[in-house]
Amino acid sequence: MKKILAINSGSSSFKYKLFNYPSEEVVAQGQAQRIGLAGATFSLKLADGSKYESEIKIPDHKTAIQLLLTWLPKYNVINDLKEIAGIGHRVVAGGEIFSESALIDKEKLQQIYDLSDYAPLHNPYEADGIRDFMQLLPGVPQVAVFDTSFHHTLDPVHYLYSLPYKYYEKYRARKYGAHGTSVRYVSHRAAELLNKPLNELKMIVCHLGNGASITAIKDGKSYDTSMGFSPVAGITMSTRSGDIDPSVLQYVMKKENISDFNKMINILNNKSGILGISDYSPDMRDIRKKAAAGDVKAKLAKDIFVNRIIKYIGSYYVDMGGLDALVFTAGIGENESLYRQAIVDKLSVLGLKIDEKANSVNGEKVISAVDSKAKILIIPTNEELVIARDVVRLAQINK
Amino acid sequence: MKKILAINSGSSSFKYKLFNYPSEEVVAQGQAQRIGLAGATFSLKLADGSKYESEIKIPDHKTAIQLLLTWLPKYNVINDLKEIAGIGHRVVAGGEIFSESALIDKEKLQQIYDLSDYAPLHNPYEADGIRDFMQLLPGVPQVAVFDTSFHHTLDPVHYLYSLPYKYYEKYRARKYGAHGTSVRYVSHRAAELLNKPLNELKMIVCHLGNGASITAIKDGKSYDTSMGFSPVAGITMSTRSGDIDPSVLQYVMKKENISDFNKMINILNNKSGILGISDYSPDMRDIRKKAAAGDVKAKLAKDIFVNRIIKYIGSYYVDMGGLDALVFTAGIGENESLYRQAIVDKLSVLGLKIDEKANSVNGEKVISAVDSKAKILIIPTNEELVIARDVVRLAQINK
Repeated sequence: MKKILAINSGSSSFKYKLFNYPSEEVVAQGQAQRIGLAGATFSLKLADGSKYESEIKIPDHKTAIQLLLTWLPKYNVINDLKEIAGIGHRVVAGGEIFSESALIDKEKLQQIYDLSDYAPLHNPYEADGIRDFMQLLPGVPQVAVFDTSFHHTLDPVHYLYSLPYKYYEKYRARKYGAHGTSVRYVSHRAAELLNKPLNELKMIVCHLGNGASITAIKDGKSYDTSMGFSPVAGITMSTRSGDIDPSVLQYVMKKENISDFNKMINILNNKSGILGISDYSPDMRDIRKKAAAGDVKAKLAKDIFVNRIIKYIGSYYVDMGGLDALVFTAGIGENESLYRQAIVDKLSVLGLKIDEKANSVNGEKVISAVDSKAKILIIPTNEELVIARDVVRLAQINK
Repeated sequence: MKKILAINSGSSSFKYKLFNYPSEEVVAQGQAQRIGLAGATFSLKLADGSKYESEIKIPDHKTAIQLLLTWLPKYNVINDLKEIAGIGHRVVAGGEIFSESALIDKEKLQQIYDLSDYAPLHNPYEADGIRDFMQLLPGVPQVAVFDTSFHHTLDPVHYLYSLPYKYYEKYRARKYGAHGTSVRYVSHRAAELLNKPLNELKMIVCHLGNGASITAIKDGKSYDTSMGFSPVAGITMSTRSGDIDPSVLQYVMKKENISDFNKMINILNNKSGILGISDYSPDMRDIRKKAAAGDVKAKLAKDIFVNRIIKYIGSYYVDMGGLDALVFTAGIGENESLYRQAIVDKLSVLGLKIDEKANSVNGEKVISAVDSKAKILIIPTNEELVIARDVVRLAQINK
């Protein structure tokens, strides 16, 4: 049976998910961790729940891929590597070039490398992954699915920063957003569940994971989104600051004797957000418990998290001129009823009301009260499935 | 007759306004420009409209003050310097220390100097001005009126950045806001006009000058405001960027070979905003005309200006849980009917509606349509009057 592989390569990690085609059943998934470091591991989990994991030397991504191509037949996931009909790769930055997922040839691979300035910690590794698969499985179609593509529909009013215009003309310095693959999936799925065409719904998607973003969808297209040039902007995240006055960075840098702005950006990405405020944990589950136990800074982190989200929702509500559906997805959005409740409670002036009973159980469904002015939904995201489907579509894979 | 002097000292400028007490009539106003530079000027304008101006050597602020104290009797504004019963000074940064305007002694003067890190281009000059007046008019009470004081009521949820908490603990790195003196005046004046107690009104004040900010007022107090640690944050301004992803600065700095972050901050303050986008002018009047003539970048600057404002209004509407009054003030807010109209048009989903005829004529008044869900007002601001009144109150000046 034909298989489609979805790949997510990080700087020291490599995640995969293998789908049967056309059933879309997940037959195997797993990851390589700590690539290039001591204590690297490789894992494989099968549909029946059995799991294999080894601590093994993985000096580079190519070795991780070779392990995958060895383990799949070894554990009888496939009989022959030829079953792999196509491979899809998550790529963070598509710039203004890639307005859609794309079948990758040598030229397009180079374009992904060339976009590395937009996502220096992601694009080079993702491009390496595509290159390695091209070498190890020649002739198998490789498709790149960009986090930014879905936001290609943004108007300049929303994507331009109020900077000297030449920075846009010369360097394409602008808002690109992220989480597009997730938002594309959940927005379409929400429309299906509501039994309405997506292009007739004003929708706001709260993708609340470790990385988190708010996206407004109008006329079936991404209208505005909270992440910016990079994923550091927008709402408060696990370890990322979200929006911030650059002058406060200048002030902190002076006080802390930091002369290299790149160091400050690292702090904004890795030491800030919920972790920074709480001085305790980047995990909203820990924060929930600690706040309930009366910890002041955990309570503050929780309240700031909710506050920044509802402010974005308010701004998009006005800018779109209304709201038909509010969607929660990703780790926190899918699994944390308390935060969903806290967010919707702050939206009562918009007429939004949660069904507390429905909200108390996670899973794909409508959780708004009958008299809520907009529908509220939980939609578990599935980026890998979108990637697999794009492979099927673009590589024209048939049964 | 007793007089009160209101002073606004900049790095190379010095503005003054002299009020009669208790009539609050302005008897003289003027400024020193290009202090310490070639081509310095000093001017004086009287209540009858007569104006005097000289190109004259002004090496420092003290000389400017001495000129003022010579010109006032010379042009018969006062008979004796003893008529000056109190002097109020605008000070940009009051940090967490000054939650209100304050009568200044030596110790408090030092505190204003000590806050210079918060406003390096303002506080030192403003403190110098107070010091010079203390020396030149000993015994006359000096009052400092801080731009930040009105926002002292912000909750940590609104004033804290999502940074490592230690930056707040050690350096008081947080949101302070600005335009507080203006917002204090217009919010009280709007409540008077609406014949309602301010603490029963949910209000949003759009202070739209060259510097521009949006402030939410709830329970009679500043609830949240768009400017941040410094005035560079918030909405798009004449030459300031407003909110921006710090990562795009990192990217631009790399591309432009800028290694010093202070240089980038200067660009954000002086070359960005409306001037940056339009590549033409920082003046919204020029932008209005150029956009009407079909210029694409001017149109974009206008649309971005309006967009950032309505997004803040939407976020504050939700966060406050409603809106009773929207107030326009400062240069653009008071004088540009077209921008007021464009902003309110984008708020129709909140039930706001402008009375086009009322809006077409500037001046202090209500400009909402009868069926608007919130009142909309123009209130010309008067920061100097607030300063003069604070002098009277704090220096306990009697008739």
